[in-house]
Amino acid sequence: MKKIYLDNNATTKVDEKVLDEMMPYFKEGYANPSSMYDPARESAKAIETAREKVADFLGAKSPGEIIFTSCGTESANTAIKGVIEKHATSENNHIITTQIEHPCVLAPYEFLAKKGYEATYIGVNENGELNIETLLSKISQKTVLVSIMHANNETGAVYPVEELSKEIKKRNKNTKVFVDGVQAAGKIPINLKDTEIDFYSISGHKFHAPKGVGALYVKKGNLFEPLLHGGHQENLLRAGTQNTPYIVGLGKASELAKNYLEYENTEVKRLMKKLENGILSTVKNAKLNSKSQKRVPNTTNIGFEYIEGELILLYLNDLGIYASSGSACTSGSLDPSHVLRAQKTPFTSLHGSIRFSLSRYTTEDEIDYALENIPKVIEKLAKISPFQKELTALFPNN
Amino acid sequence: MKKIYLDNNATTKVDEKVLDEMMPYFKEGYANPSSMYDPARESAKAIETAREKVADFLGAKSPGEIIFTSCGTESANTAIKGVIEKHATSENNHIITTQIEHPCVLAPYEFLAKKGYEATYIGVNENGELNIETLLSKISQKTVLVSIMHANNETGAVYPVEELSKEIKKRNKNTKVFVDGVQAAGKIPINLKDTEIDFYSISGHKFHAPKGVGALYVKKGNLFEPLLHGGHQENLLRAGTQNTPYIVGLGKASELAKNYLEYENTEVKRLMKKLENGILSTVKNAKLNSKSQKRVPNTTNIGFEYIEGELILLYLNDLGIYASSGSACTSGSLDPSHVLRAQKTPFTSLHGSIRFSLSRYTTEDEIDYALENIPKVIEKLAKISPFQKELTALFPNN
Repeated sequence: MKKIYLDNNATTKVDEKVLDEMMPYFKEGYANPSSMYDPARESAKAIETAREKVADFLGAKSPGEIIFTSCGTESANTAIKGVIEKHATSENNHIITTQIEHPCVLAPYEFLAKKGYEATYIGVNENGELNIETLLSKISQKTVLVSIMHANNETGAVYPVEELSKEIKKRNKNTKVFVDGVQAAGKIPINLKDTEIDFYSISGHKFHAPKGVGALYVKKGNLFEPLLHGGHQENLLRAGTQNTPYIVGLGKASELAKNYLEYENTEVKRLMKKLENGILSTVKNAKLNSKSQKRVPNTTNIGFEYIEGELILLYLNDLGIYASSGSACTSGSLDPSHVLRAQKTPFTSLHGSIRFSLSRYTTEDEIDYALENIPKVIEKLAKISPFQKELTALFPNN
Repeated sequence: MKKIYLDNNATTKVDEKVLDEMMPYFKEGYANPSSMYDPARESAKAIETAREKVADFLGAKSPGEIIFTSCGTESANTAIKGVIEKHATSENNHIITTQIEHPCVLAPYEFLAKKGYEATYIGVNENGELNIETLLSKISQKTVLVSIMHANNETGAVYPVEELSKEIKKRNKNTKVFVDGVQAAGKIPINLKDTEIDFYSISGHKFHAPKGVGALYVKKGNLFEPLLHGGHQENLLRAGTQNTPYIVGLGKASELAKNYLEYENTEVKRLMKKLENGILSTVKNAKLNSKSQKRVPNTTNIGFEYIEGELILLYLNDLGIYASSGSACTSGSLDPSHVLRAQKTPFTSLHGSIRFSLSRYTTEDEIDYALENIPKVIEKLAKISPFQKELTALFPNN
């Protein structure tokens, strides 16, 4: 059976070049990078090389601004709770974010709100674009932290975090700006040294490194309380024995991602648009949810009116086509996507919304196969939908 | 050059069988285990199999008591801060630990003490054995948490955490007991279901899984606030995309460690004793620091009087012998070991204390090579030590 993987925003295949660079550190290169003997020094050196590559990828001023973590969620929790622990006071307890963040930002915000912090959640318009004026108007002398994602995992919408960081600082220079860059890294360029972003998180497995490694950029001069207290690793900012193979892998993946950035924005984008346009032009009850002016090149989110998303995924799965109805991190929950609700996606397509996310491994054949099969699946499901009257209006020839 | 790795308490070589089981999840098995399609379900299944293996290794009542984390430090931080966040109140704010814990326990305690929690640190006697009566006498109705390590990383001393957990609960049934089992796992047996330990942490890279994966045992019924807030993974107790390859590796390493437990306590112990006795009988200024009645089978810590430990390590490194002067997690710090200071190791040998830690990969040849070279190194360094008078008394024939 064919296997067409169109869920690269959930996770990506590890690049073989990444795996090759990691392998020696599972074998002879296993020494603890914090130890003092020669093999340990080699591991430590490999980690510093990786740090340079990640710094270069993100446009940091220096490798010292990069801290390795175990995942994007840890990076976000470190930035958010670390800023609060260090900088919040009883007068300085206001935190802002958006309604469309990933759970790794929303859940820490909910945790802090329960503890008494004043949390403001900024909404988006019907295209999924951020209400920037509202956001900026909410910043006061009490605002200690603003968290904004760079790209949304469900719709692919891109937010102008570079400019926003500057506008936020104009209103309150002490407000810390955290950007969740997990879904942007490797898809759109970022040059952190030209921004006023204080913290920026990435996750290796979203750009062909393994699951279980991430990084947090901390602009020089920013203090925060570490989330993991313990040993002296990572300049005392993240305790725990360093995961040499994965850190080396993250370095290599960063180097590759930088090189593939153009390919992502030409070829991957072309295939995404082919899939999107193909579906929209052949499936009558298909509506585009990814309507933001600016979008990452690999993602499209399409709502199929009057059809249940889980059923679509089940049928696609049987054809070897793998996609998702939202974040893998919220699977198990039956609530419709908080992102699509925030942009007021009508209930008629909200429950039948599917995210397709491509990668540099996606081929033309795969997109052709998807385009051949998706309309058939939707047609089949339309026939068993309880909304026959509404669907008949859309498919008059059936 | 020979490479004699005698620093297995810092980290261990990944077992090839562990690596073999991990590899498919770096390749075709890369799907996000939280996703809904068939390949994702296979990853999720592999994770649940690993959970069963870890539960079996630790003698948990059920796999549901195991949470996967990114390291021992994360496990300890999760237990300690998670208990405090959930259970501490202004009347219920007393926390107890020992002076000889790993930094992953001491640093969170220091953090909490700074925030106003009342922290009590229990000492050890000159053999490194815990002052149990003192510990128990400190437990009051205010005591919310006691943290005790199962085995010490520097001396190998083993603490009777099974019995202690019961004695603690007799004094205050609401006191939570966290045991850092990182240096015990794979070296001595543990059967958590027969104890009253609430939380128990392990770290994969101490028993031949890779660096960057750990687990936290949470006895059924215990509540805590997660350290990583975000997605629905790990039953909502540890957010972040699950690291399938490493979790699978941790499962395999747990299965192997259980099978090797007898070998550790016979053959590894024999080689450790051969090394220890060999050094103590041939090196006149050598004093045993590992004097606890009960000790893990792989560890010996020896003080070389009037000689600088860093110099010993440097000379041993040049001979391809890798050992350490304390925890890799505190390297970079020039302070002498807090563990040896707690057991009042005399200053004459404190600064020249070396830990040798073996594993199932250590061979007789390696121990012979070490025994041939260590006395020569010490003799050489004795000649350049500033304490000639004192050394002459120990080496009258030189």
